[in-house]
Amino acid sequence: MAYELYYWPSIQGRGEFVRLALEEAGADYVDVARVRGTGVLTDFWEAEDVTTPPFAPPFLRHGKKLIGQTANILHYLGERHGLSPRNDAGRLWTSQLQLTIGDFVVEIHDTHHPIGSGLYYEDQRKEARRRAADFRDTRATKFLAYFERALDRNGPYLAGRKVTHADLSLFQVVEGLRHAFPMMMRRLERRTPLTVALHDRVAQRPRIAAYLASDRRIAFNRMGIFRHYEELDA
Amino acid sequence: MAYELYYWPSIQGRGEFVRLALEEAGADYVDVARVRGTGVLTDFWEAEDVTTPPFAPPFLRHGKKLIGQTANILHYLGERHGLSPRNDAGRLWTSQLQLTIGDFVVEIHDTHHPIGSGLYYEDQRKEARRRAADFRDTRATKFLAYFERALDRNGPYLAGRKVTHADLSLFQVVEGLRHAFPMMMRRLERRTPLTVALHDRVAQRPRIAAYLASDRRIAFNRMGIFRHYEELDA
Repeated sequence: MAYELYYWPSIQGRGEFVRLALEEAGADYVDVARVRGTGVLTDFWEAEDVTTPPFAPPFLRHGKKLIGQTANILHYLGERHGLSPRNDAGRLWTSQLQLTIGDFVVEIHDTHHPIGSGLYYEDQRKEARRRAADFRDTRATKFLAYFERALDRNGPYLAGRKVTHADLSLFQVVEGLRHAFPMMMRRLERRTPLTVALHDRVAQRPRIAAYLASDRRIAFNRMGIFRHYEELDA
Repeated sequence: MAYELYYWPSIQGRGEFVRLALEEAGADYVDVARVRGTGVLTDFWEAEDVTTPPFAPPFLRHGKKLIGQTANILHYLGERHGLSPRNDAGRLWTSQLQLTIGDFVVEIHDTHHPIGSGLYYEDQRKEARRRAADFRDTRATKFLAYFERALDRNGPYLAGRKVTHADLSLFQVVEGLRHAFPMMMRRLERRTPLTVALHDRVAQRPRIAAYLASDRRIAFNRMGIFRHYEELDA
């Protein structure tokens, strides 16, 4: 039975972490809103007969299951497709990493939306400059150093010898940060060689490479999480 | 074997979601930094022999396991102490709710820290006013309406007849919002009767009631997540 992924059709966003897992798994899936439009996204929020309504996309439908929250979806897919370790300790560690990546993604998003996600960037530009400066100087450094340490203790992948959904997500974060903060990343990547090597290793996995070269991969743009604004980079 | 909880000893913060689960479970645990000081928190971040280092507190030590990230810790405790459903679909739903509560908590925190978590409130007061206004007008309403809907579809608890860690956490969020945003909550609680009833039901559970009355429960203060600043409420 095919998976149905529900996410905004014009951005990578949080949906991209799920897309990467589905692609690496070689899973049969439909990116529903890209086929049928965004109306399908809100249908589930309001439908009376849905007992597990999602708060926001992405969410995944699989048979009778309707699963929301990126890390939760990846936990589900990870178990089904060998993208998380088989033992409890390994699975807990992989979830812990995925949740920490999720925290990082919120902070990346908030560099351009520090006041409100429903407001335009142009209406919070001044605050964004301050928040982005703090992000570059303290937060990005701290998060990347953390993943570097995790790789140092466990490598070549974050949980050892086999790729997990957390590795795919860290690849995506590096891609996104390079797009959004190229100057910052030139500086930080010098201190995080294991993370850069992980990024390259993921990019070279055959199914990921094929996906990245396909038109299923949406380009970065100024509607998603990873946005390039010159004034926010340094 | 006793659980060891590692969290800041002077605030409720994210550690409180774990404390409430341990208390409801009647589990044997030590709140380590309250006994031995905050030095124990940073020891784990740097120790060379720790293969699963936490990014930040709270983290839980249980035997050989060292588990980080609030939702991940609660998933672990939930399975062990009957604080999450036994079936897969119910467990996925409970995790989804817990993660959505986690997202809400980030937004609550950022009302007083919109620019940087390492800066003082006083240095981001102006931005905090703007962010808090957006939070009150759009985000708090949206999150609380979501949990109200979840209770309407599944009640009396979020996942049905039995209490889960997500219910304990939603109780804590209501407590915290009442402390931080009393004016806003007087308005919003009128529209969320099921959430208020859930809060009361959790507060009356014998172990939770005993905990709240004990000196193990730290009072709200201006170092934690839920802070009352008059200028941010309305």
